Amino acid sequence: MEVEEEVRRIVDQVKELHDSATSFVSASSQEELSLRQRSSVVDASIRRLHSTLVSDKHLDPKLFDKLEEDLQRARCLLADGDTSSFLPFKPQGRFVRMFLGPVNVRASRKDIQLKVKEEYNSYRDRTALLFLVFPAILLTLRSYVWYGCLPAFPVQLYEAWLLFLYAGLVMRENILRANGSDIRSWWLYHHYCAMAMALVSLTWEIKGQPNCVQKQKGVRLFLQWAMMQGVAMLLQNRYQRQRLYTRIALGKAKRMDVVWGETSGVDGQLWLLCPILFTLQGFEAYVGLQLLRTALTGVVAEWQVLICGILLVVMAIGNFINTVETLMVKSRF
Amino acid sequence: MEVEEEVRRIVDQVKELHDSATSFVSASSQEELSLRQRSSVVDASIRRLHSTLVSDKHLDPKLFDKLEEDLQRARCLLADGDTSSFLPFKPQGRFVRMFLGPVNVRASRKDIQLKVKEEYNSYRDRTALLFLVFPAILLTLRSYVWYGCLPAFPVQLYEAWLLFLYAGLVMRENILRANGSDIRSWWLYHHYCAMAMALVSLTWEIKGQPNCVQKQKGVRLFLQWAMMQGVAMLLQNRYQRQRLYTRIALGKAKRMDVVWGETSGVDGQLWLLCPILFTLQGFEAYVGLQLLRTALTGVVAEWQVLICGILLVVMAIGNFINTVETLMVKSRF
Ligand SMILES: CC(C)(COP(=O)(O)OP(=O)(O)OC[C@H]1O[C@@H](n2cnc3c(N)ncnc32)[C@H](O)[C@@H]1OP(=O)(O)O)[C@@H](O)C(=O)NCCC(=O)NCCS
Ligand SMILES: CC(C)(COP(=O)(O)OP(=O)(O)OC[C@H]1O[C@@H](n2cnc3c(N)ncnc32)[C@H](O)[C@@H]1OP(=O)(O)O)[C@@H](O)C(=O)NCCC(=O)NCCS
Repeated sequence: MEVEEEVRRIVDQVKELHDSATSFVSASSQEELSLRQRSSVVDASIRRLHSTLVSDKHLDPKLFDKLEEDLQRARCLLADGDTSSFLPFKPQGRFVRMFLGPVNVRASRKDIQLKVKEEYNSYRDRTALLFLVFPAILLTLRSYVWYGCLPAFPVQLYEAWLLFLYAGLVMRENILRANGSDIRSWWLYHHYCAMAMALVSLTWEIKGQPNCVQKQKGVRLFLQWAMMQGVAMLLQNRYQRQRLYTRIALGKAKRMDVVWGETSGVDGQLWLLCPILFTLQGFEAYVGLQLLRTALTGVVAEWQVLICGILLVVMAIGNFINTVETLMVKSRF
Repeated sequence: MEVEEEVRRIVDQVKELHDSATSFVSASSQEELSLRQRSSVVDASIRRLHSTLVSDKHLDPKLFDKLEEDLQRARCLLADGDTSSFLPFKPQGRFVRMFLGPVNVRASRKDIQLKVKEEYNSYRDRTALLFLVFPAILLTLRSYVWYGCLPAFPVQLYEAWLLFLYAGLVMRENILRANGSDIRSWWLYHHYCAMAMALVSLTWEIKGQPNCVQKQKGVRLFLQWAMMQGVAMLLQNRYQRQRLYTRIALGKAKRMDVVWGETSGVDGQLWLLCPILFTLQGFEAYVGLQLLRTALTGVVAEWQVLICGILLVVMAIGNFINTVETLMVKSRF
């Protein structure tokens, strides 16, 4: 029988394949383990040696500089080359563990890590546009169609979208971090705050007529802040995407940049971007203070307005401090 | 110089390590590729042969059964053994892609897959308790402390928690699925619906005095449903954890169960569990209909109440149909 023959052949093939898979998996996991062990030993030695160097007062300064650079290069090679996936994991953030459980989000290959980063950038581009357009439409309709009075449903839809958006952003940033990005923790906290704000604003009752122009002042300020956030994101994206491409094009690994100095073309852009960012951060603080005033003078005496005001002021201050710190770190090279 | 010597040694070690890592990565990715190709070829052949078998009318029925079983065994070996990680990916769900981007959430090793599943179960256990306790406290305080009137804040806190909880559950279920779980899509949709409900209920204004007993009827029903959901989850968890342990203890691979019949001890439990589940589903539908009535007779004429009612009825019907279907599939063996 022909079919019988074929079934027998397939069964044999599957068994064979299974055996090769099993032996491959066990062999490679053994080799992986040994690479992992060697990597963490070497990593620890580099650290130890670095502190010996620093504490050694009798060293010739020139020699010291040379040795420091050698060590730094070694560290770069270890952290950015193919060895990087064998270094001990940074523990994954709480947020990731809460939503994903014990799944490993670290990509094992460099090209996938870059893909994750590019996808993050294009996700931000897509959302930044909506960020601008959605509240702009709401505010326009308010003035020309709704006689100064925002209906609750579209605003709440927007707030729900914001909540999901920020949750997605912060999840991706956690993942980027697990994949070795140097993103500052503040930018993650910033997005947790923004999530909290979206959540709080969902419970915020949007009052209608009469007198809604005054009662809805808080909501209006919130929407204006959101539009401004969209502008900030678009600008930042343009800059960061260019930065990534320059890096990829030059084939420089991440940490190497710091040693060898930033690519100057993009660095110039940063100095253009910053005044705009500072202005936006000032506006953020202003909106926050306005909300606080609205809450405290009692025109809209809801706790939601108070919390949103506080969050905005905190975010503005944090953004400012961290932007300044970034600039200071960069100008040192 | 001693330090100089040591730095040189470390630099050499790092280079060496880097080279072994590079050659390991390239060798293993080549072997992986070939295993991937062989797996998908064999997988396709099994499929093809299966359809040939089924369409071949001249085959002796006994021989047919034997060949079918051989093929099925081959498929099990392929899908559950070490080869499983080389089979073509099921595409990851939209929800996962939206929140995580192009990260691979499939665990490469069987033991990690089991760990993910166990962690999912214990996550559910932890949350099921809160599910029961939180609304119970709210409802008790309402009767004895708050004079029949729920304050908005704790209820909204609970609703926000529900939203995050369901998002986490559905994310983990998507991940389990990517790791080869046979979970029906409905249970995922069920949790999307529950998420939608939590989101909608957040925008639902919780009215205070006067007359809040009547105005808050919807909220009260919602909390009662949540408690009931907690009971269902606890029972289901007990059953499913036992099922997982029996499986692990017997060392049977997942799909094999279906071929060789369920482990009878746990199967008996299912028949005990189901009447309770059906009762709970009945109650779910009842709560939904009550909400619909409240919305339509106009005591609380908010769209949120209407939507929540519809969602509850849909969930009850879907749960019922899918529980019945599961039972039917199981009783066939
Ligand atoms: C100041 C700024 C332009 C610096 O960007 P930068 O030059 O990329 O900063 P760094 O070199 O320190 O970046 C380190 C890493 O963090 C990332 N990063 C920096 N700022 C980030 C941010 N706001 N969000 C997400 N990721 C950020 C970078 O992409 C980089 O990632 P990588 O290590 O994977 O390549 C940027 O932080 C910024 O735009 N901040 C202001 C944001 C703001 O205030 N927004 C709200 C306005 S109201
Ligand atoms: C009926 C029921 C007990 C069957 O459970 P079961 O015997 O595990 O069902 P199956 O054998 O079809 O399970 C297949 C897979 O889906 C998973 N699964 C089944 N129902 C699930 C559910 N409700 N949620 C999450 N996962 C579920 C199982 O764990 C199993 O995973 P695995 O392939 O990784 O091992 C279960 O589906 C259930 O409890 N349903 C009712 C839920 C309900 O109605 N809740 C609300 C009450 S108002």
